[in-house]
This record gives sequence, C-alpha cells and structure tokens, in this order.
Amino acid sequence: MKTLYKNSTILNFLDGKLTVIKNGFLAVNDDLIEYVGDKEPECAFDCVKDMTGTIIMPGIYNCHTHSPMTLLRGVGSDLPLDKWLFQKVFPVEDKLTAQDIEAGSYLALMEMISSGTVSFSDMYFEPEKTCEAVGRAGLRANISRPVQCFDPTEKPEDSYRIKQSIDLYDNYNKAFDGRILVDFCIHAEYTCDEKTTRYYSSLCNESKGNMHIHISETLKEHNECIGKYNMTPTKWFESLGAFDSRAFAAHCVFLTEEDMEIFKNHNISVVHNPTSNMKLGSGFAPVEDYIAKGINVALGTDGAASNNNLDMLEEMHIASLIHNGYHRDATIMSAEKILKMATVNGAVLQGRENCGNILPGYKADFVAIGTDAPNMIPCLDEAALIVYSAGRSDVRLTVVDGKVLYEKGEFLTLDKEKIYYDVKKAVERLYS
Amino acid sequence: MKTLYKNSTILNFLDGKLTVIKNGFLAVNDDLIEYVGDKEPECAFDCVKDMTGTIIMPGIYNCHTHSPMTLLRGVGSDLPLDKWLFQKVFPVEDKLTAQDIEAGSYLALMEMISSGTVSFSDMYFEPEKTCEAVGRAGLRANISRPVQCFDPTEKPEDSYRIKQSIDLYDNYNKAFDGRILVDFCIHAEYTCDEKTTRYYSSLCNESKGNMHIHISETLKEHNECIGKYNMTPTKWFESLGAFDSRAFAAHCVFLTEEDMEIFKNHNISVVHNPTSNMKLGSGFAPVEDYIAKGINVALGTDGAASNNNLDMLEEMHIASLIHNGYHRDATIMSAEKILKMATVNGAVLQGRENCGNILPGYKADFVAIGTDAPNMIPCLDEAALIVYSAGRSDVRLTVVDGKVLYEKGEFLTLDKEKIYYDVKKAVERLYS
Repeated sequence: MKTLYKNSTILNFLDGKLTVIKNGFLAVNDDLIEYVGDKEPECAFDCVKDMTGTIIMPGIYNCHTHSPMTLLRGVGSDLPLDKWLFQKVFPVEDKLTAQDIEAGSYLALMEMISSGTVSFSDMYFEPEKTCEAVGRAGLRANISRPVQCFDPTEKPEDSYRIKQSIDLYDNYNKAFDGRILVDFCIHAEYTCDEKTTRYYSSLCNESKGNMHIHISETLKEHNECIGKYNMTPTKWFESLGAFDSRAFAAHCVFLTEEDMEIFKNHNISVVHNPTSNMKLGSGFAPVEDYIAKGINVALGTDGAASNNNLDMLEEMHIASLIHNGYHRDATIMSAEKILKMATVNGAVLQGRENCGNILPGYKADFVAIGTDAPNMIPCLDEAALIVYSAGRSDVRLTVVDGKVLYEKGEFLTLDKEKIYYDVKKAVERLYS
Repeated sequence: MKTLYKNSTILNFLDGKLTVIKNGFLAVNDDLIEYVGDKEPECAFDCVKDMTGTIIMPGIYNCHTHSPMTLLRGVGSDLPLDKWLFQKVFPVEDKLTAQDIEAGSYLALMEMISSGTVSFSDMYFEPEKTCEAVGRAGLRANISRPVQCFDPTEKPEDSYRIKQSIDLYDNYNKAFDGRILVDFCIHAEYTCDEKTTRYYSSLCNESKGNMHIHISETLKEHNECIGKYNMTPTKWFESLGAFDSRAFAAHCVFLTEEDMEIFKNHNISVVHNPTSNMKLGSGFAPVEDYIAKGINVALGTDGAASNNNLDMLEEMHIASLIHNGYHRDATIMSAEKILKMATVNGAVLQGRENCGNILPGYKADFVAIGTDAPNMIPCLDEAALIVYSAGRSDVRLTVVDGKVLYEKGEFLTLDKEKIYYDVKKAVERLYS
C-alpha cells in the first residue's frame, strides 16, 4: 500500500535542526516513509491525500504517564500533595479492577491519539490490559509494571511485582510488530529498598532493558533520601545498578551537578512534566541546564489525576513558557527546542530507532495540524504556530506505522461508544 | 423571546462562592436571565434547548488584549523582548491600515467567541474598526485608544492621540445597547510624560472614565521609573491623577507593598497575563498577594503577538498552574479562584453591573462546555474539569445578551469566509 500525502508544509529534523518543507510531499509505503521533500514523486500510489491547509510534523511522544488514571481525572483537585495522594487517589486505586484499567487505558488512548500522540511511556499496574488496548488502537507504547517494596522482610525473589514485571516483559516486549516495548520500572526511591532495587536492576541489566523511574520529583523526596542514605536518589540508584543497562527518569526537578554527570555518563534521559510539577507545587526542573549538559530531555503529561489531561500540544506550550518566566529571559526556550523534545528526543528515550522524525526509512508516524482555525491564522512561523497557538482541536490526522488512527474527529481503530460505556460503568462503581 | 436551556450542570457564584447546580435549568427572556436553578420553570418558552452533556458557566472575560495583533501572531518568536518589539513588531505595525485593523479585529473576535470569551478589554489604534466589529459580532468589549507622548514639546491639548481617544469616547461609549464601553488609556509610564498624563487623567476624571494602563510589566520598566522619578510607576500615575476616577492595570508583575496599598485605596483592578509574562520572560505576578489584599484580579491573554493565542480557557489553566510551581505549594491556586477571576472579576474590572455571573436579572451571557470529549471524562469535579482539562474544542455554545453567537463550530453573527479573505489580503500585503 503506497500513499502520497501532498501539498502540506512538512516539519522534520535534519542533523538535529528543524527543517520546514513548504508545499511538501510525503510518500509512505506500508509502515515506512519512502520520500519527503518538495518534489512530487513520479511513481504510482494506491491513495493520494491532499493535505492543503495543514502542517505535517513527526508524531508526538508522551514519555511519562499513567494512562489508566484517566479514571481519576479531577479527584481531590487543589488539595496538598500528601492529602491528595493518600486521602483521595489511593482509596480509588485500591478499588480498581483489571476491567477498570482496560477502560481507563482505552479512554487515555482516545485522548492521546486525538491530540497528536503516537507513542507514550506508561507506568501502572495490570499493564497487560494497557498493552492489549495499545495493540488494538494502533499506536506505540513503552509499558511498565512499577516495582515497589513496602515490606523489609520480603525477598526480592518472592516479589509479585517483580514477577509481574518480568512476565510482562516475556509476554509483550516487541509485541504488535514492535509497537509495544516493555520497560523495567522502579516506582521511586521512597517506595523501594536496596535489596529489591539491586536484584531487579540486575534482571534489567541481564535483559538489556530500559528502566523507567520517578527521580527527585519533590524536594522532600530528594532531601529525605540524602538524610537516609547520604546520597541523592540518582546516586542511590546508580550505586545499586539501576542505570547499568538503559534508563530514563521522570520529573528530575532537583538534580544536582553530580546527578547530571551521572545522567550524562549513563545516557539517562529526562522526562520533563511541567504541568504536573506546577500543579502539585513541585517546582521548576532546570531542563535548560540538562540540555546544556547534553542530556536527552523529552516531555510527558504525567497521569490525568495530576495534569488533568493528556494533551501533549498543551504540555509543549506550557514547557515553552515557564522557563522563560522563571529565569526572566525570553530566549531560554524556543519552539524548535520544544518540538524536538516532543518528537525526536522521545523516540531516543524509548529506544526506538528510525522513529520520531520524518525521514526516508523511518516509521510512518506523523500528525497533520490544520491551519484553518482562527487561532492558526496567519501562518508566519510553523514551529511557533504549533507550539504556541495550536490545540487538540487543530489535529486533523494521526498516523502510526502508515495507518490512519484518527482523522477529522473520527477514531478509525477504536469503538468510542463501547469505550464510553465501559468507562461510565467503571466510574459509577468506583465513586458510588 | 423566551428560551429555556435545560438539563445542563450550571456553575455560578453566590456571595462570591462557586455553586454547582446539577440538572439545571436556565431561563432567558430576551437579553436577561429570568431563572436559574434545578426546578423546571412552568411558563411557556419560544425555544427549549436540551443541553444534556454540557456545563454552563458564566461567559469569560479577557481583560487585556490588543485584538488586531492577531495579524502579528508568530512574528519574531523566541527573540529577546526588545529585539522582538523594535525589530519585528513595530515595523509591521507601522504598515497597518484601518482596513488591516478591521480584518485583524474580526479574526480575534472569531478566536475569542469560539473559545468562550464574551467580553474583552482592548488597547490599540484605529479602535473604531474594532468597535464596529464588536457591534456586528455581538459580544461585549471595553475599547480604548492608547495615549502616548514621545515629543516633549507636544502640548497635551494638541495630542492627536488624546483627540482620538476622546472622539472614540464621544462616539462609541455605551454603543450597541451598552455592549461597547470606551475606556481611557495611557499606554505606559515609559511611553508617556507628566504633562500628558496629568492633562489626560483630568479628562478621564471629568468623564468618570475607566483608565486602562500597562503597569510594572518588566523589572526594567519598574526600576527605570524609580530611577527617573524616584517613584514606582504606580506611585507616579497616582501622583498625576491617573487613578482619580476608575482604573485597571495590566501585568503588574512587580508591585511593591506601597503600590498594592494604592491599588486597594483606589479600587484599581489587576489583569494577570500569565502566558505573555512567561513567554516574554517578564516574571511571576504575585497575584496571590493581590487577592489576599482584597485587590480585584482578572485575567487576560495580552495580544496574539506575545501569547500567541486568545484562548482564555488555556490562559485560565496556565494561571492555575504557575503560582503553585513558583511557590512549591499545591494550594495557592484553585479552580474556583480561577473561574471567578475569569468571569465575575472581569465584569467588575470592566465596570459592568449585572454581568459576569448567572443570576436572575443578570445579562444572559454564558458559555456551554461539552463534557463528551475524551479529555472531559469522567466529570467528577466541574470546576476542575473546566480549568484543568477543557480546551477550546469543548466550547459548544457562546451566548451574549441572550443571543447565540457560536454553536457547535458555527459562527452565527460573522461571515467566516469574508474575514478569512480580508485577513489573507492584509497578511500578503504586510509581509510581502
């Protein structure tokens, strides 16, 4: 199946620099991009799509979320972090069934696909349900089952969480034509212990796995770790082997200079979650320092319980704004930096080669943004328009592996009515 | 004409507190609200609208913008403030014709109406064009012609800017059934002088006018004023009589304790513009302090050149987030505070009685937000859902003076094709 997308402005990255192709053509053969440029390819196509009035950009990567938490959207809003978590979130989570997780995952996929996300990195329990939903929906995801340990007498070999994580890896890693990758995952320093972290990290290293961790999200967490171990969370995880294979860390609001060196030396990626960090009062991750050090920085929404949406276009906008304000300098961020964080850098973080960009030989994952709504006129600077002016209402098309998942408001791989029905039932039960 | 809007969840404010009316009914008679509550009124209606699956809230007030600057959306993005303004913005503004201003105003009105704004406070030149556009579009606006003085020898009595401002007041104040109010306006301390400010302030006072000013947007402006006059901009304006009638000030990123006292004593409202303050690197207005002092705080987008959109739903979200992050405290802002800033407080700032709330006897200005998109499910907390999760794509209906201006993606008072044509012509000329 050969498809030509024509007459769009196409954004991609060449040698890390943003390129804008006016009146562009994008030729897709099955799941791969064959051509991108400003000349019309002369070969025959099974399908030709006129994309006049759109900007085509690489599909967006949401590199840290907890997708089933859509079911907790708006729970305990505006409470202090500990009350929100312990009094509101945990009691609902205790009631969640596998069926709920499935419904919440599908709802998250609808929200993500319709706002231009083509791949996400997830951390939650009952992850098989999320994997199956991703398989059906057609996007990509790095899925993980977080490991925690609250019982000091528990032997790591007996941990059901570790067992579930390894089973997930065995059953789903590279599933659905490689659209699913299974990550290893330690929830955080403050929810795990040394023996569990050391043992599980060795398993990750044996499998050459990719470790997903919450690191230094709050100053409390960061300082309490130093109080306990005389080490930052980053140093603690390094000392236990958690970074011996590949790794990426969410939040990283409080990395020290030494932590940054560790990130750089181990090629650890950072996921910046500005909305969640602002809303929960965590603070400003110094991502401009991370970028300056050469650390790969991607973006994420965190879960819908702390965001409260999964809209990466809005996340990109917020990430573009807050650092300029914090440093009183209009030149800290730029639309180009943000676009790269949300696409190319996301694919690097997830360990996906030939993904996250629009280049020949790359996976045909892209998004078309309409330029015909009042908020998108005039189109003087495509990157600025996408980062500062666009919203989910401007997403016209979401394509993964060459397959159209979403077009002009319609979900082509998902049964919206069934998902809404299942979510309604889950919500009624959870909050009755 | 009597219309009943039924089966919606309705948000309003009673004695300053947010109230949520489930399964609500809203009865409108011509331009006024007759009833709001959870009982179905028994009288006859000319029209009954089933609003199942929506939240009806008071219409949104965008209290500081420069609407024709939609034509400069994306110009010089990511440059430092002075280069952006002097090298990019001013050269385009120098070319703007009255016809361009008209086209840019209409484009702004489309963007505002479709994202739930029912009233705005504008500051720009050729304001008659904006007034006529607002008259036709059907929303409300406080329009002003900014006064500046760059020639120390110019007599205030001879200032064409002051003359234009007074002409505007004479010709358009209370026009279109009072939907237009004309404000007085001094652009800023750094673009005006003592004699002009004193003279024009006395005219404002004679007319019992409402003065719109940029105050202490950047630390540079604030400190240079102190250097010149040994007074803050606020103190300087007070000393020249600019606050003798009514006044409101945009930005206010750097008010001192004494400035706050002046604001409080003169009942001056603050317009918080978080996106613009972040993007341009100005900093964080301490709005939580202003609120604590009892100062009326409203919200605005600023112009599309520095935002780069006019979406108040996004502005509300950003305003709700950044202060928690800045102070590392999740309880600084709340959805309720933000909703009040964007509605009730905006009407107070504009000097509009019986506006900005959904109560019997109030003007029938409201917005219906759909709760059927994936980002709006589940609906556990209506205020949180609107502030943290909703976007312009969720606006189903915008009503002003009882008249539907926008419904399900259609503009009922504006000719979209003509506006787009005019904007295209203006943009081609401006950037050729």
